[in-house]
Amino acid sequence: MTARTAPRRLDARAEDFEASFAELLTAKRETAVDVNNDVAAIIAEVQAKGDDAVIACTNKFDRLNLEGPEDLRIPQARLDAAAAQVPSETLEALKLAAERIEAFHARQMPQSMSFTDEAGVELGHRWSAVDAAGLYVPGGTAAYPSSVLMNAIPARVAGVERVVMVVPTPDGVENPLVLAAARLAGVTEVYRIGGAQAVAALAHGTDTIAPVDKIVGPGNAYVAAAKRQVFGTVGIDMIAGPSEILVVADGENDPAWIAADLLSQAEHDPSSQSILITDDAAFADEVARAVASQLQQLSRQDTATASWHDFGAIITVPSLADAVPLVDRLAPEHLELAVTDPDALADRIRHAGAIFLGRYTPEAVGDYVAGTNHVLPTARSARFSSGLSVLDFMKRTSLVRCDADSLGRIGPAAVALADAEGLEAHGRSVSVRLNR
Amino acid sequence: MTARTAPRRLDARAEDFEASFAELLTAKRETAVDVNNDVAAIIAEVQAKGDDAVIACTNKFDRLNLEGPEDLRIPQARLDAAAAQVPSETLEALKLAAERIEAFHARQMPQSMSFTDEAGVELGHRWSAVDAAGLYVPGGTAAYPSSVLMNAIPARVAGVERVVMVVPTPDGVENPLVLAAARLAGVTEVYRIGGAQAVAALAHGTDTIAPVDKIVGPGNAYVAAAKRQVFGTVGIDMIAGPSEILVVADGENDPAWIAADLLSQAEHDPSSQSILITDDAAFADEVARAVASQLQQLSRQDTATASWHDFGAIITVPSLADAVPLVDRLAPEHLELAVTDPDALADRIRHAGAIFLGRYTPEAVGDYVAGTNHVLPTARSARFSSGLSVLDFMKRTSLVRCDADSLGRIGPAAVALADAEGLEAHGRSVSVRLNR
Repeated sequence: MTARTAPRRLDARAEDFEASFAELLTAKRETAVDVNNDVAAIIAEVQAKGDDAVIACTNKFDRLNLEGPEDLRIPQARLDAAAAQVPSETLEALKLAAERIEAFHARQMPQSMSFTDEAGVELGHRWSAVDAAGLYVPGGTAAYPSSVLMNAIPARVAGVERVVMVVPTPDGVENPLVLAAARLAGVTEVYRIGGAQAVAALAHGTDTIAPVDKIVGPGNAYVAAAKRQVFGTVGIDMIAGPSEILVVADGENDPAWIAADLLSQAEHDPSSQSILITDDAAFADEVARAVASQLQQLSRQDTATASWHDFGAIITVPSLADAVPLVDRLAPEHLELAVTDPDALADRIRHAGAIFLGRYTPEAVGDYVAGTNHVLPTARSARFSSGLSVLDFMKRTSLVRCDADSLGRIGPAAVALADAEGLEAHGRSVSVRLNR
Repeated sequence: MTARTAPRRLDARAEDFEASFAELLTAKRETAVDVNNDVAAIIAEVQAKGDDAVIACTNKFDRLNLEGPEDLRIPQARLDAAAAQVPSETLEALKLAAERIEAFHARQMPQSMSFTDEAGVELGHRWSAVDAAGLYVPGGTAAYPSSVLMNAIPARVAGVERVVMVVPTPDGVENPLVLAAARLAGVTEVYRIGGAQAVAALAHGTDTIAPVDKIVGPGNAYVAAAKRQVFGTVGIDMIAGPSEILVVADGENDPAWIAADLLSQAEHDPSSQSILITDDAAFADEVARAVASQLQQLSRQDTATASWHDFGAIITVPSLADAVPLVDRLAPEHLELAVTDPDALADRIRHAGAIFLGRYTPEAVGDYVAGTNHVLPTARSARFSSGLSVLDFMKRTSLVRCDADSLGRIGPAAVALADAEGLEAHGRSVSVRLNR
């Protein structure tokens, strides 16, 4: 891929707009690396040899010298020490974030229900938490304490008893902020492992690490492939892609604010994507200049520049209403509506992971302290999936109860359908109970 | 695998019980066929050549002579004709089932919500339906009209506008019951295609078949592998395994009824699994005899016998309370509680796809007319997943709104966390809006 030197500029009035927009929509932002065979081999090794395989992989890939299974776990005392190491301002901010995340997610708790219908059949469903959840936290630069809160707190709110975190410590380097966040979020076990071997250990269990029922959290290509492969043995969350922001803004905004918003996601990764849609061409130019200017001062300048030039875009539309179908086709992870009447626009939009309403709601508040979850669907998957929630850590059991009378009312139809499908034993299990 | 000649008998009082139960729990019921490369090739072909590839695959695998894209669709007139062909008793039974399924699933509709918290931040979420859902229906013997209802009706209740069904017609043989069910369930398009090529067409779209956002429904190894591979481009439901029933019964039941229930799932597939747990050893023997006797008269005798002998089990426990931990470890797709006080037992059980309460609730009513969904988690996945519901066809968008005051209250913590994570542009997008 040729690196671009400026973001795409699209004009919805232009003749070639549909072609340009389609190109933007389908532009590959990630090069798929096929690690499936390597990952399958690691998973098979962990299934066969348990702790020994996990230790061998960890010593090899993370350059550690673990001697036995007792070295896998990061003990509670280390979590306490890590928390003591974190500056108090940061710790207070983490606590505020944790409280707000907990309060919002508590409102997501689903209701069990039960009713008796006119046929006399009692029907319902009951929600319950999974027994154990595994949380993958990447090592290195992408290890974010905020992500620990966002993944662990919904599990705790759902009522999950074991919340197990795995985090690699390459060359033995621990991230105190991540450990402090784990302590704050109520994580019950932490292991210093990563990669496919960590996912395999969580899914299949070892002598030291009891298996979990659901694995969540972002990771590299190996982790993503491993999650895909263990899906079925355990549940998994979505496969996260690089982050995205789409800002719909009118000309009444401060260009510097909107530029800052676009850069807040561009700085994540060279594959991140920041898009502005506006009905004001002059404002579009001002934002473009503001982004260029702010890029000069940014510590993550190289990353943000690569993202903005390669995948960024500025789209001008005749009116804000024309933004609606474009937003739905992009189905962005994050959508900011920096306009006078954001509700009118939001009501017409069908596909977005999260919507940030109005000029004073920069997307970054959602990354940390709004209370909503920052694990959101990427790569247009907001068309069919949702951000992480307590529901990801719960499951529903259906309940059915008939008595002789109500079975007498609905049973004959079941027998008729079983007959039609050639499933004789299905029909018999009902008919033996009829006419008693 | 050596075919067994009788089901396993386990006694919880026996010394080797734990080993026997663990063996039962981990017994492989399906031989995994690796068709990943074949499937990847088919998907790539459909992506590259669209309709032409779908037609070529269909003519080859289903032995048809489709001449062009216009032959792919089964027109509405055929659906009408199919419905006219179905005996009225069957059609009435399908209608009753459809009405009851719709009524139950209407109660699952989730609530959008919004509130302003004490910091003045407005938070909420909004549920909306996916635009288009694809429903895979297998051809041949496993083509069940009841499954068409169970997959399509929740999509329609959720508000999905396009519900697209694909069903292979090997050698041109159509199943009028399946087509009649599609008509009844409000399926909007039907295509005569199957296998990986159908999944690829639904996920990536062709000139004739517009892409969908979510694909549901059971299929063979090719279909399962294809769903796994397109996951991310579209959403998918669970990967369904062979069906299961676990009956917990006391000695007060008619052994013939319980035997019929066990056989109702055994007749599905040689890999199906039927298990009885009882506190009455004499009753266990009676059920074993009743199963053997009923097997003699069953049209699907070979299938049911293979399933019952290879994977069936009868477990005796000292008391019904001892069944609870065993049930949770099995996490069955279907659980029948044929006991005097089923509620007391149900309250203590954590993991099951659906629970059928009491002596007059054979599992088969749930397959057809109870109203609950018969697409349920198999292979112990009830530990972490749920039956199909309207939620599978909907997604949630988070909503956040700050004004200058509320951003002033929570913004500084966001800036502190962004700083701690080294994400300067995140912090700036908040701090530029503070102190105005």
